[in-house]
Amino acid sequence: MATKEQMEKVKNIVVKLRYLECMDNIIYYDRWNNCPKDGFDYEGKVGAYLTELSNEKLTSKETKELVESLEGETAFDSDTDKGMVRYLIGKYKEAVQIPASLQGELNQANADGQLAWGKCYEADDFESFKPVLKKQFDLQEKIATAINPDEKPYQVLVNRFDKDYRLEEIDAILAKIKDAVCEILNAVREEQSKIDDSILECEADHDTVLRIVKKAQEILGLDKDKSTLFEIHHPVCVCTGPRDSRPSTNCDELIHAILAVVHETGHGLYNYNANDEVAESGLWGGIEGAMHESQSRFYENHVGRTREFWENLYPYLQKEVPKYKEISLDTFLAALNKVKPGLIRLKADELTNTLHIIIRYEIEKEYFDGKLTVDTIEEAWNRKYQEYLGFTPKNHQEGILQDVHWASGCVGYFQGYALGDAYAAQFAHKLLADCPDAFEKLGKGDSSVIGNWLKEHIHQYGQTYSTREMLKKQQEKS
Amino acid sequence: MATKEQMEKVKNIVVKLRYLECMDNIIYYDRWNNCPKDGFDYEGKVGAYLTELSNEKLTSKETKELVESLEGETAFDSDTDKGMVRYLIGKYKEAVQIPASLQGELNQANADGQLAWGKCYEADDFESFKPVLKKQFDLQEKIATAINPDEKPYQVLVNRFDKDYRLEEIDAILAKIKDAVCEILNAVREEQSKIDDSILECEADHDTVLRIVKKAQEILGLDKDKSTLFEIHHPVCVCTGPRDSRPSTNCDELIHAILAVVHETGHGLYNYNANDEVAESGLWGGIEGAMHESQSRFYENHVGRTREFWENLYPYLQKEVPKYKEISLDTFLAALNKVKPGLIRLKADELTNTLHIIIRYEIEKEYFDGKLTVDTIEEAWNRKYQEYLGFTPKNHQEGILQDVHWASGCVGYFQGYALGDAYAAQFAHKLLADCPDAFEKLGKGDSSVIGNWLKEHIHQYGQTYSTREMLKKQQEKS
Repeated sequence: MATKEQMEKVKNIVVKLRYLECMDNIIYYDRWNNCPKDGFDYEGKVGAYLTELSNEKLTSKETKELVESLEGETAFDSDTDKGMVRYLIGKYKEAVQIPASLQGELNQANADGQLAWGKCYEADDFESFKPVLKKQFDLQEKIATAINPDEKPYQVLVNRFDKDYRLEEIDAILAKIKDAVCEILNAVREEQSKIDDSILECEADHDTVLRIVKKAQEILGLDKDKSTLFEIHHPVCVCTGPRDSRPSTNCDELIHAILAVVHETGHGLYNYNANDEVAESGLWGGIEGAMHESQSRFYENHVGRTREFWENLYPYLQKEVPKYKEISLDTFLAALNKVKPGLIRLKADELTNTLHIIIRYEIEKEYFDGKLTVDTIEEAWNRKYQEYLGFTPKNHQEGILQDVHWASGCVGYFQGYALGDAYAAQFAHKLLADCPDAFEKLGKGDSSVIGNWLKEHIHQYGQTYSTREMLKKQQEKS
Repeated sequence: MATKEQMEKVKNIVVKLRYLECMDNIIYYDRWNNCPKDGFDYEGKVGAYLTELSNEKLTSKETKELVESLEGETAFDSDTDKGMVRYLIGKYKEAVQIPASLQGELNQANADGQLAWGKCYEADDFESFKPVLKKQFDLQEKIATAINPDEKPYQVLVNRFDKDYRLEEIDAILAKIKDAVCEILNAVREEQSKIDDSILECEADHDTVLRIVKKAQEILGLDKDKSTLFEIHHPVCVCTGPRDSRPSTNCDELIHAILAVVHETGHGLYNYNANDEVAESGLWGGIEGAMHESQSRFYENHVGRTREFWENLYPYLQKEVPKYKEISLDTFLAALNKVKPGLIRLKADELTNTLHIIIRYEIEKEYFDGKLTVDTIEEAWNRKYQEYLGFTPKNHQEGILQDVHWASGCVGYFQGYALGDAYAAQFAHKLLADCPDAFEKLGKGDSSVIGNWLKEHIHQYGQTYSTREMLKKQQEKS
């Protein structure tokens, strides 16, 4: 049984590690929003120093002794205590496995990569991006080897986000989804192609788009006192504190701006909804990887594409964008949910989204298996898009340069979107079993039944449980 | 002679202390710009932890031994080395004198104060502000006592910003300035009262104001790659890195927005203009207190109020705000430079500005001498305004609530503006002796003569020298 004294020490370390992580996230946020060009380099150094500080704390004699005294311990006063110990041991292992200099190097590469990606994307310049990508992938491989030299690097990288998943298992899940998607796609392709989705294109000035996405957040019940909306080319949600979460959107195209903000708001709610005990223990913010994406994808697909959600937002949209006054909600919803294979992941429909994920997952896997290099990666990308989705990118922006992930150190992450979709479907099923009126209420403007269910069953626990434990918890309750 | 080995250790510590300070400044910036209401508390804790980390570093055995081995050392390889040692010893002394818990408490109080001030100002509510002020002043007194229990608290507080100044010396300088100001004021009051400054009031929408203040920054030669402009009720400049500086302005009133941005741009240039050696040594950012204000006040008064500056900006202003097409530059400049005693420091003219400073300095002094409490401080404020400037505030906003300083922990700072004015006048004198064509060039749109002179003589040294050394350096060159 872990003693009170041990747990106090654990909590003290975990809370401080989170302070440092929060600082790193504020820098990340700052780089997207405020930092002038010449300030990036120094903020990269500051970030690297934060990593160094975390490492110092984790590899100290005190932490080492604490971890050794707790390893294998299974009896805890509470799940929160157990979660803190799991968190600390996980971080400790990485810290002793990955040399501090390598962590610092990665931190700097992420900062540099974030800046370089923005520039290369703007210029549609993949050639200049190649060395950036090469550097990231090289560093990632070094990190994987440092963590476990006896394992395939990609296996290790994937496990940094989605713990306990074997690649074979993910392969099998993705293959199953792929077959199902292709089957459905073939069945609906013709009928879907008849739907006119040009109505989704519309001229709306920047401020109008902003007002509408804020209205969408309001319908979803996002607390303005706990969130700041920002704009960015590639939407993300930055988690800057237990009660401070920053979803973003890209305001270039209205309808995509709405779906993106709904997705990021899902992350946002998960981020700030931990209960007080979990928040104080440092376990706030939600489980990284697939479980976090399950919340964003839940909101995007199971809420943001529903009639009930739009029954609230559509009248507002019609007021703000007169063209929609002449278009019925039925017509709009058909267009919004049209299945339409395309090149851009962020604009993919619910059905074909996974195909984009599979392409990225396969490419990462082939790369770290030594089958691809930065010189052949784009060809592979384009070939797979032609094969899986029927289109070849005409430029790098609509091809290999579309995602910010690799540039900013998110390697081994993509499968989380597909796994998250699967979890989200399970949660939707469970929610409806528990609260059959959840969507009826949403249609009447009350998103709290959905929000409260997610908060009670998932959000409030933050990172207390592993993904597997969290899923099991839901299944046991059924 | 300090050894290479010693200096490497010093540099390593100083650079890392600056990383932590930079993080603290990014949080400060974040709180003004991005942080949602419920996120303030956690950012306060993170800030307190940064202070704790600085303290740990400073009070470590390694630093202690290093400082002890270097105390009294006068021979250094370079002025930068000497500056780093002075910086480190100064920080070390504060760290061992002020208990870490007290530093953390102050950090939290500053975060809380920043939020509370905004709310109380909005609501014009001084009653709710009293406990915030009391807490800050109590903490400041504790800190002063911790640093030197044998000294008057206010003396210590002033020396935290303006080192080596005795209060008696400041009293004498301020008294001299006050006499001179009153004498000039009496001489010009009648004539000045005839000038119509109502032409400075104009309707300009927010985006127009923003365009004009950015144009002003452009004329001053501010590098956009090294700066981010932001908006705030009470303008400040946040120093977020050796090549990253963030001036702000308040866009409510056009002409004041311009003068404020010129002032903050002065800070901004000083912040990011250290030479590479100084930047890498961690001594970037400029000397705190009066020397920093000398640069902002230099820009505000010796540049921003001149005909030459406006010869560049006025045509742009006339284009953006049609009303000025009918007003000559002469008429405009007379209004801009009109001496007009008033209630608001930030809107004060060049002449009466010091009277606002003196009031604050006297109030701080009386407070820490035990002659005032938070219950009597406003009465004192109002009485002094009536006596020195001839007006009594009609509400708290135009009275005691107008400045953010006290709320955010800036106690003992105000004298720096008046001393800075004096230094700025000396620098202007010196600049003209060295470069008689400086303002002629400015009139032709080239601010680089002024900018380069300041960079060469002041900015490039960052915090290498003390204020006294810096002033002496200028005098020696004359």
